[in-house]
Formats: sequence, structure tokens, C-alpha cells
Amino acid sequence: MEYQFSQRVTSLKPSAIREILKNSSAPGVIPLSAGNPAPDAFPAEDIRAISQQLLTDTPMEALQYSVTEGYPPLRQHVKEYMANKHHVGSDFDEILITSGAQQVMDLLTKTMLNEGDTVLCESPSFIGSLNTFRSYQARLVGVEMEPDGISIQGLQQALETQKNIKYLYTIPNFQNPSGITMSLEKRKKVYELCRDHNVLILEDNPYGDLRFAGEDLPSIKSFDEAGIVVYAGSFSKVISPGMRVGFVIGPQPVVQKMVVCKQGEDVHSNIWAQIVCHRFMTQRDYEAHLNRLRCIYRRKSTVLLEAMEAHFAPLITWNTFQGGLFAWCTLPDSIDMLEFVRRGSQRKACVVPGTAFLTDEAQPCSCFRINFSTPSDQQLEEGIQILGELAREMSAGK
Amino acid sequence: MEYQFSQRVTSLKPSAIREILKNSSAPGVIPLSAGNPAPDAFPAEDIRAISQQLLTDTPMEALQYSVTEGYPPLRQHVKEYMANKHHVGSDFDEILITSGAQQVMDLLTKTMLNEGDTVLCESPSFIGSLNTFRSYQARLVGVEMEPDGISIQGLQQALETQKNIKYLYTIPNFQNPSGITMSLEKRKKVYELCRDHNVLILEDNPYGDLRFAGEDLPSIKSFDEAGIVVYAGSFSKVISPGMRVGFVIGPQPVVQKMVVCKQGEDVHSNIWAQIVCHRFMTQRDYEAHLNRLRCIYRRKSTVLLEAMEAHFAPLITWNTFQGGLFAWCTLPDSIDMLEFVRRGSQRKACVVPGTAFLTDEAQPCSCFRINFSTPSDQQLEEGIQILGELAREMSAGK
Repeated sequence: MEYQFSQRVTSLKPSAIREILKNSSAPGVIPLSAGNPAPDAFPAEDIRAISQQLLTDTPMEALQYSVTEGYPPLRQHVKEYMANKHHVGSDFDEILITSGAQQVMDLLTKTMLNEGDTVLCESPSFIGSLNTFRSYQARLVGVEMEPDGISIQGLQQALETQKNIKYLYTIPNFQNPSGITMSLEKRKKVYELCRDHNVLILEDNPYGDLRFAGEDLPSIKSFDEAGIVVYAGSFSKVISPGMRVGFVIGPQPVVQKMVVCKQGEDVHSNIWAQIVCHRFMTQRDYEAHLNRLRCIYRRKSTVLLEAMEAHFAPLITWNTFQGGLFAWCTLPDSIDMLEFVRRGSQRKACVVPGTAFLTDEAQPCSCFRINFSTPSDQQLEEGIQILGELAREMSAGK
Repeated sequence: MEYQFSQRVTSLKPSAIREILKNSSAPGVIPLSAGNPAPDAFPAEDIRAISQQLLTDTPMEALQYSVTEGYPPLRQHVKEYMANKHHVGSDFDEILITSGAQQVMDLLTKTMLNEGDTVLCESPSFIGSLNTFRSYQARLVGVEMEPDGISIQGLQQALETQKNIKYLYTIPNFQNPSGITMSLEKRKKVYELCRDHNVLILEDNPYGDLRFAGEDLPSIKSFDEAGIVVYAGSFSKVISPGMRVGFVIGPQPVVQKMVVCKQGEDVHSNIWAQIVCHRFMTQRDYEAHLNRLRCIYRRKSTVLLEAMEAHFAPLITWNTFQGGLFAWCTLPDSIDMLEFVRRGSQRKACVVPGTAFLTDEAQPCSCFRINFSTPSDQQLEEGIQILGELAREMSAGK
């Protein structure tokens, strides 16, 4: 049979990151291309104990059907936690538990976008989200990133000239892939500009708790009085990504439509994982756990930075970053980035080509992304050395 | 802010079943409206033991990111199991693990349907799937059900007259809501007709293992030589619905597109649950477990049938059923079905109005659906008695 696919999927490609991830577990490969939390960052023993008690005392709670909106005690706790700790969420907001934050991107897009509508995004931005927007035939318009976050001039221009803009997608903290954190001034300005242009903001904050340098900045959602910010949170980087638990806090009318869409997608998210997240947050010292994670990533980032100083500088440069899992590196003009990534991969040092994160993969780009949470210290040092040597070879015309 | 929703969600309503489910756990309510597996059907002790060992020995396996296609050993095992036991799956097929079978409906629709394309479905049919199709702006065309399955004449006429048909949606075993099982002759005829009209078949089989009377019939997928059948399976009714694990076996080009769509929806399904399903199928006596389930539902269906004989007959009639979780009942013309359901609910006996399962809820319908897996024996007897009395009252003009 000749299959007639829908228009929306005909042009879609599998995510380059996921495709690379598949091979990154091959023997001997140094996984600088991944985005996995560090193995020692998982509260595995707590999850085991909580799970054991749950499945012993009230197994039906974890195994029976549940409601689409999410496990009620988890919804209530996250709502209070986010309000008290981060000033996220108002009376006009609602919370929905999702199957990872990725599902927030999907559900909001399904709820808001007609074919051809525009999504503004930071350029570069997280490929997983861009692909989700593309799967609804969104028109992606990238706005240039600056060292303190999205270009305000670029955003203003886009808001004034682009048509049918449904939302701005932004990752204000330790952005994936650039590592950039948006300044407080820009956060306020972004909020005001979008509000004045009647454009929603999708604020994605998977790494916010992983700050290991500098001071926490308020989320854009914390300024939201007009009900224009949809906030996506995730337990993937702070508890476990395999569990697939995330959440969205946004204006009630929007989230209610997202609930209807979620009913049709997966009925509800795995309930065992929702209960484990709730008990881990409420029955363990959650703040101490987050501090432990920050120590782990601070240490690992230091290993990376020292290796880059030794092997990359001055040929390859990198953005400073105060948290998250990624470093964004720039090659000199003399080196072809895609060729560099290809040859690095042949030498078992896998990184993600910067083009993967652009709204238009055909644009020129001399950057690549390094993940420092997945590899061991030794792998980090080894991988950076391989890439540094490769860059020097290529720079010398070899 | 005034929110401008997408066209696709503007007309959507929350599923009546899920809305009813929310209230069905209120104190004193008899949950004849639900679709939950019976509490004693869960292999809770096995799941606890498997989970404990997994989270002790190799916690990273259960907690780290995984691949979109699903846990490789589970994919391999289900592929072999379905091929050997049910002749489901050929060389041209591929398997994908999903977040419950509901996600199969979603991903196939996303992969195949453009706005306004036609989905043929049995009338009545499962509301959850119909709502998923609606969420992609499908045009639903219902084909009448007969005691031995979909009307072949009706199907032939629809295939010849309807435009842009992308697939036929069918639940051949113990259909939800009608309880009807499609005859072998009709299964073959349905396959041939769809093949000859170049129309895919989405065969949904969540209840196939829950046959407690009669003989197993081959699935439509087992006839598939042309690569036109997409088969949806689920562990929700045989292991646990809270885990959200299902699967699809279908032609490779179709399933590969579904994988791309799943990447954008939830990256992958909860991996702990996938491993538990794999170990439960391979390390426990799975066939003995399925036999145990059949005994549970055979017994519960007998409780229901005896109560209906005592309190419904002859005023309310019902379809015979050989498995599954539901009975489909028909009121005499003298009783208004929606009023009956409303008054039953007031008396704490909640059933689902038949109109919820139609492609057009405004069509006349004198049927309602009873679930016999969720309520206890006592609740079943009590609920049927209440509804029987109510019908006699209404029939007498009260």
C-alpha cells in the first residue's frame, strides 16, 4: 500500500538529538551530545523506598486509572511550592501534571496554533520544542540571542512585523543550547512587550533549580498580572527523566483546553511516578536534595571548564554559564563546523552541531553544544582533549 | 487577555466519561459508569516485587532517559509474543511502545489525517477514541453495528460514497460500548473491503485477553498481507492502567512517522512501567495470570447477568457479550434515556448515556452502558435493582 501521510508529518524529520542519543550509548563513545542528568544526581534510594511503601500499603493508588489533571496532592503541593518559593501562579492560573515538560509544548501548541501561525523563539533554541511546534505546522521565527538573553530590539521588531504570532517560546535560565541566562531587565521588558502585543509567553524552565553560580532571578511568570504567561516545569532534571513527570501553570482557560487535549493523548500521566514525586517533595528534604544537585553540577562544570581552558582556548571559545547542563562553543571561521562534528564523532567524541538548534537548519553556524552532565569526569577530559586536538589540526588545514 | 484558541480545540468538549469518572468516586456512588479493571485483577504483589528488585539492582535503567521507540526488550518480547500467539505482525511491520493505547489513536491520527479527512467508525464506538479523532478535525462517519459486528453493507456503502477516508476504526472483541464481537466471516470481509479501497484499518484490541465465553477469533491484523492494518494493544486491562503502557504494531513507514510524532509529544513513555511489564510477562506465568483475570470477569459478569435477569427483564434488554468489561442495555421507547440516566445518577446509580458513544450526540438513542468490572458484587446488585425500579416507575409514567 502507498501511504498518504498528513501534511503536518510529511516534512518532519526525527530529532537529531534523539538520533544521536541512540548511538551515544555505543561502546567507547564519549556522550558529550546527550542531555541526561548525571548518574549520581538521582535520588534512587529514596525513590526505591517510597515506591516500596506505596506498592505495599496502597498499590491501587499507583496502579488504577486516575484523572487527567494529575494526582491531586501533587497538583496542590506544586501549586503551593511554586507560589511560595517562586511567585509562580495566581488566582487566575491552573495547574496540570503532564508527561514531561515536552507534553506542555505539545498541548499548548495543539491548543493555540492553527496551521501557519507564528511562534517566536530564541535562536538558537531547544530542538525538541522546535520540532513539536513544527509538527503543528507552526511558522518559526527566530530572534537573536545576546549574552544577557533574547535581543529586545529583535523581539520588538518581530512583534511589530510578523503576523499571527501565537506565543514567544523562551528558556530564561541556562538556555538549551546556549547556556545563556536572561537578565532581570530583559525579563521585565519581554513580559511588557508581549503583553502590549497580546502575545502569550511560553516560559520553559527545566534547569532553573540547577543554578551553581550567581543569584536566582525571578521568572517571567512571576510578573504575570495579565494572564499571558504559560509556565512549563519538569521533574526530569531534579528527580528522574525516566518517570516523565512535568507540569504547566497557566491561565485557567488555556490550561482547561490543554486538559481536554491531554485526555485524547494519553488519558493521564503514569500515576506511580506522580505519587513518587509528591512524596519525594513532601517526605524528604527537597531543598537539601536540590543543593546536592547544584554541588554535583558545579563540580562537573568545573571539570569541563578546566579541560576547555587547557584544550580549547584560544581557538574554540564558549559562553559563560551559571547553571544547567550545557556549554555552547564557537569554532573559528576557518573550521567547518559540520565537518568538525563529523570528524569528532569518528574519534568517539560526540557533540551536537549548532545548526540543529536553529529555526532554519540551512543557516550558517559555527557553534556546537557540549553536555557535561552525562559523561564521567574522565570522559569529559578525554573528549575535550580529542576535540581540541581536532580543532588545531583542522585549523592548520589538515 | 482574550485567548484565541486553535480551530481544532474550539469545538471540543471534555469526554463525558472522564467527567463522570471524576464524580463516580464521590461517597456512596455506585460506579457503573467507569471502565476500571477490578481491584482484585491487579498483580500488585508481583509488580511490587519486580519494582523493588529493579530499583535495587539497576535503578538507572528505570530512572534515566530512554529511547522513543520503547524499552528494547519489551518491544522484542511483545513482537514475538504477538506473532507467536496471535499471528499479529509481519516482516513489514514495526512495533512502538506508547503511553497507553489512547496514544496510538492520537499518533496515528496525527500521522495520517488532514483537517476534514474522514474516519469511519462503528456506531456506537469508544468515546475516548472518537474525541481524539475529533481533536484533529476528523469528519467522523458512523457505520451501524449488528449483533455480529459492523454492518458490511453499511461499510461497503461508506467506502464507496465517502471522500478522503483515511482509516476504519474498529474494536472487534467485546466492543466498547456495545459488547459486540465481530464474527470471523465479517473480519475477513472488513479486511478485504478496506484493502480493495486502499483504506487503513485501526484495530483496537484492549479487551481481547478478557474473553470468558466462546472461542478466540483471529484478529483482523492476522490476515494483513497488504500492510493496511495498524493494531493497537494495551496493558491497561491486563496489568495496570495507571502505568500507561500500550503498543502499536503496524506497517513500518506508518509507525516510523508515529515515532517522530511521539518524540514531540512525550519523548518516551515512563520507563519503569515498561520494564515492569516486560519482567511481568517474562518472569511470571503470564498465561496463568490471564486465566485468573478471565475467571474474575466471568464471575462478575454472572453477577451482573443474574441481577439484570431479576431486575431489568423484560423491560430493559441487553446485548450478549463474551468478554470485556461492559454491558450495553436498551430501554423501551416509552422511557427517555437521558432522563433515565439523570434520575439514576440522582439515586447514586451512575451509567453512561448511549449518546456519548455516537458520532453525533444529537442522534436519538435509547441505550446506556454498564460497567461490571469496577463495582463490587454488592454494588452491582444494588445498582441494577435501583435502575430496574427506576425503569418500571418511568414506564408506568411516574
